[in-house]
Amino acid sequence: MCMSTTEVVHVAEESLRAFTEHVFDCCGLPEEDCRQAADVLLTADLRGIDSHGVARLSSYVDLIDNGTINPRPTVEIQRERACTAAVDGDDGLGLVVGARANQIAMEKAAESGSGWVTVCNSSHFGIAGYYPLQAVARGLMGWAATNASKRVAPLWGGEPMLGTNPIAVAFPSGEEPPVVIDMATTPAPYGKVEMAKKADESIPEGWAMDNEAAVTTDPGAMMDGGALLPLGQDRERGGHKGYALGSMVDILCGVLSGANWGPFVPPFGRKEYEPEEKVGEGLGHFFGALDVEGFRERESYEEQMDKWIRTLRSTDPAPGTDGPLIPGDPERRTTEKRKVEGIPLIKPVLQDLEALGERFGVII
Amino acid sequence: MCMSTTEVVHVAEESLRAFTEHVFDCCGLPEEDCRQAADVLLTADLRGIDSHGVARLSSYVDLIDNGTINPRPTVEIQRERACTAAVDGDDGLGLVVGARANQIAMEKAAESGSGWVTVCNSSHFGIAGYYPLQAVARGLMGWAATNASKRVAPLWGGEPMLGTNPIAVAFPSGEEPPVVIDMATTPAPYGKVEMAKKADESIPEGWAMDNEAAVTTDPGAMMDGGALLPLGQDRERGGHKGYALGSMVDILCGVLSGANWGPFVPPFGRKEYEPEEKVGEGLGHFFGALDVEGFRERESYEEQMDKWIRTLRSTDPAPGTDGPLIPGDPERRTTEKRKVEGIPLIKPVLQDLEALGERFGVII
Repeated sequence: MCMSTTEVVHVAEESLRAFTEHVFDCCGLPEEDCRQAADVLLTADLRGIDSHGVARLSSYVDLIDNGTINPRPTVEIQRERACTAAVDGDDGLGLVVGARANQIAMEKAAESGSGWVTVCNSSHFGIAGYYPLQAVARGLMGWAATNASKRVAPLWGGEPMLGTNPIAVAFPSGEEPPVVIDMATTPAPYGKVEMAKKADESIPEGWAMDNEAAVTTDPGAMMDGGALLPLGQDRERGGHKGYALGSMVDILCGVLSGANWGPFVPPFGRKEYEPEEKVGEGLGHFFGALDVEGFRERESYEEQMDKWIRTLRSTDPAPGTDGPLIPGDPERRTTEKRKVEGIPLIKPVLQDLEALGERFGVII
Repeated sequence: MCMSTTEVVHVAEESLRAFTEHVFDCCGLPEEDCRQAADVLLTADLRGIDSHGVARLSSYVDLIDNGTINPRPTVEIQRERACTAAVDGDDGLGLVVGARANQIAMEKAAESGSGWVTVCNSSHFGIAGYYPLQAVARGLMGWAATNASKRVAPLWGGEPMLGTNPIAVAFPSGEEPPVVIDMATTPAPYGKVEMAKKADESIPEGWAMDNEAAVTTDPGAMMDGGALLPLGQDRERGGHKGYALGSMVDILCGVLSGANWGPFVPPFGRKEYEPEEKVGEGLGHFFGALDVEGFRERESYEEQMDKWIRTLRSTDPAPGTDGPLIPGDPERRTTEKRKVEGIPLIKPVLQDLEALGERFGVII
């Protein structure tokens, strides 16, 4: 551990990984699941999605403590066809249940060309991008989506009814790095609103509305009974499209899987509110994998994929920019940096982890 | 036919359908293909997507006339696995090739739980929403996407590199109408910019940039060397997400299928420009179908889907609105109206059709 500034402490990836595995072990997770859960959180931290990494470790521990999350679930396939399956997560940790379901999707893709798996009875699964990255590592295209607790108003709605419902898709390539898309179906994720509030900063117009459905740049007004807007923000600029994408995710992850959906999805910490009604089991995910070779020779696919990446990279830059990035570039660059420099932890996160360390007899 | 105003003529759906079939018949399409192609165009007109209906009939005829489109293609599966296939459209009409490929996806879904089909060597396939509607009519979930000629700048790009690359997804329901999403991955489709130019009106900020990559509200400036912006418009409001969605469509429809992609997709009429390079065959599509019963009992799925629709409909309305719509509502309402009142044709479209009628000896 090295103190780089008074505000941020950098911890080596491997130390933080071992620490996280140890904490999950003390919570009663089987050894393999400790490794799995830590891998999802560390991947988020390496990729720079700090809100979804070890910053959430104490929340997961709380949920195991209070019996909301089952540390030793029996994850079972409830229905199955050649290229589809419906999985019940037995109230397990989303980080573990999600990876198990994604594994099934990848195996089916290898056998039949594609695999599509719904999950109910799960909990928050970390960054959506983790799962398609697993597929890419096997040369497959991967998909993942999850529904989440209500924070987003449908276009023309005056209250939150959907989650930020992220979609992640990744495409393998040849010599170039893969294309990795990982996006909430809102202009910005909720975590950025929380961060703006903490920093006493305003948020851009187009992100949120207050509790009277008026556009606001005050993060507190969004958090106090307001809502996030869907990607596209208003009717004129395609807010109905962001709403439609969020709906698609909610239907696949909730209605199709047998999980809760829309305003009935349980909140992350069960502290915020109690859903009015239970319409399914836990929250839900949707995973997919597609075998490139079902469609064309791998060699020609990879060659064209590399050319696609190079072509888009060579787009004339807009004035004042360095030109377009390829989806996944920022996270890849952050990973390269953090592999060397360690993962930066802000003080509140470090204190949270130190408290866990004290409880479970391990030093971070 | 009844003249309702001096500007618009209403033509009964069945007359327009028979006329369209006759025109395709005169162009040498097999009888079944005439019915199929007319069905896609009439569905667009019924749903109110006038830019994609019979307004394009004369352009399709031109492309058959000049040999760009093959009126009697041999649409063949090039590669196949249990739930995937790669189809070569043999330069056929997208309206016919697309329907054939979508049919394969639906058959595979019935057999194996899902079907995913890429298409290369095709041409414009009409409205993307047509294809998942076919799936919904069989109780399946349906997907369709197509790439298109370059009109959209990647985020931070100063020139168009991608098409408006639409995605359509539809979900069957029980007593409620199905959820039908059909969206370009831009704030607005190109047709609306063209219409604004014709009407000498400005376009909203956030739709487009001019040929120097500056935001513009002048439709002419977009059309004259500018570009559409991706959904989300700028970095702050999620423009990278619209760009990522457009990229996803281009990779699935172009790179994976073996069609042209990105800036190399041939333009609709081959009049606008000649792509710099040929990187594949024709333009490409991607179709999918998913069997609900692979995941849960149809009865409980339909019950929850109906409840989802009713729940979202009962969202508190934002001030000044009637509350959220369900994706597909506007098009369904337009269809109900046009089934009774006929399809409104503006003068230039009517004149276009009359010229075709004269050539092929049929009265509209």
